[in-house]
Amino acid sequence: MPELLHHPVSAASRFIRLVAGEIGFATEMVEEPYWQRRPELLSINPAGQVPVLVADNGYALCGATIIAEYLDEVHGVFKRDKRLLPGDPYARAETRRLIAWFLDKMEHDVTAPLVRERIIKPQMPSNRGGGSPDSKVLRIARANIRQHMKYLSWLAASRPWLAGETLSYADLAAAAGLSVLDYLGEIDWAEQPHAKDWYQRLKSRPAFRPLLADRVRALAPVAHYADLDF
Amino acid sequence: MPELLHHPVSAASRFIRLVAGEIGFATEMVEEPYWQRRPELLSINPAGQVPVLVADNGYALCGATIIAEYLDEVHGVFKRDKRLLPGDPYARAETRRLIAWFLDKMEHDVTAPLVRERIIKPQMPSNRGGGSPDSKVLRIARANIRQHMKYLSWLAASRPWLAGETLSYADLAAAAGLSVLDYLGEIDWAEQPHAKDWYQRLKSRPAFRPLLADRVRALAPVAHYADLDF
Repeated sequence: MPELLHHPVSAASRFIRLVAGEIGFATEMVEEPYWQRRPELLSINPAGQVPVLVADNGYALCGATIIAEYLDEVHGVFKRDKRLLPGDPYARAETRRLIAWFLDKMEHDVTAPLVRERIIKPQMPSNRGGGSPDSKVLRIARANIRQHMKYLSWLAASRPWLAGETLSYADLAAAAGLSVLDYLGEIDWAEQPHAKDWYQRLKSRPAFRPLLADRVRALAPVAHYADLDF
Repeated sequence: MPELLHHPVSAASRFIRLVAGEIGFATEMVEEPYWQRRPELLSINPAGQVPVLVADNGYALCGATIIAEYLDEVHGVFKRDKRLLPGDPYARAETRRLIAWFLDKMEHDVTAPLVRERIIKPQMPSNRGGGSPDSKVLRIARANIRQHMKYLSWLAASRPWLAGETLSYADLAAAAGLSVLDYLGEIDWAEQPHAKDWYQRLKSRPAFRPLLADRVRALAPVAHYADLDF
């Protein structure tokens, strides 16, 4: 069975878990504390990031976008109207733009700094960059959340699904990032009803269940994290 | 004719210019000083980045990876053995991994900081983050160059082209990034003969010529920048 190196605090990993769940692609899950930069990880993925999908032939597919494209090419393409990367070139471009928006830009502006300050740093030794959260970094990331939530709400209000008429990789990428932020209690759902409606639809899907069972060492999720009615 | 919003200091823009040149895809070139975050750019690409390809139907394709995938889908796929994104799913994954390596990781570690400090900051007003280069940032980026050049040399020594047997997007993405660093005189070619041989092959291709004619306001390139024999 293919192995998926992942971590519960990695939005990119959660995205691939959602994709695999939606298309029924079974993997053996291996938790990888990527911030430790273990030599075993670096030998598989020199970029030192998760997710990595190690296929049955031993080939390592490194990075969420690369894995998602691969899964579409070898599995998704047979799903007809349930395909998660649409067939039309412009619709594909819009879907890919939103994957990059949520897994690169929102990750950079919001998710990665909050995860680093609130989850990773407290469990790292101080001589390797560990320590208590930097309040300035938290403040900037939290200001950025509001912009990202506004954009998400606008998308959710103007289209049935984020990239258009059907559920796509764009929804799964956005929900993966939001689920990490929601675990941390960083989202004010009352402010953004359209985004909340959309997230509720995502959260109710069977593929989402494993994410709602995630628990990170040393930090419990907020009370509503696993509630479908939040 | 499709419009390409680009900038000569943007490695991602150079990548798409190389791709367009190789596949014979003509565009009208529009220089966009992306760091000014002009409202006109933000209305087309909320991420505020170049390149953006505005297709004849008015649709804006935002970001180098998205444009490259699109160009492969609508043009590259007909190029048979000259296709720049190979047909095999694992070869595609390796090509995409290297695009991300050079346009995301090398960009983050090396190219973007050097461009920001040496080209962008000196022409920005001080109340918008302009000023003289930060020597600490320069020092870190320059230390990172050596690691990236070693990895590139290893790839160039172990394969005919970076992603395998044929010229691919991986070569064009790497060469795009290196050409920016070479403009700035940041590469010590004598140290890395394999990388130099490979870059020389790229530099001699007709698609590369427009890049060698690039000139950035206020900073001339190093003397050997446009020499095919450097």
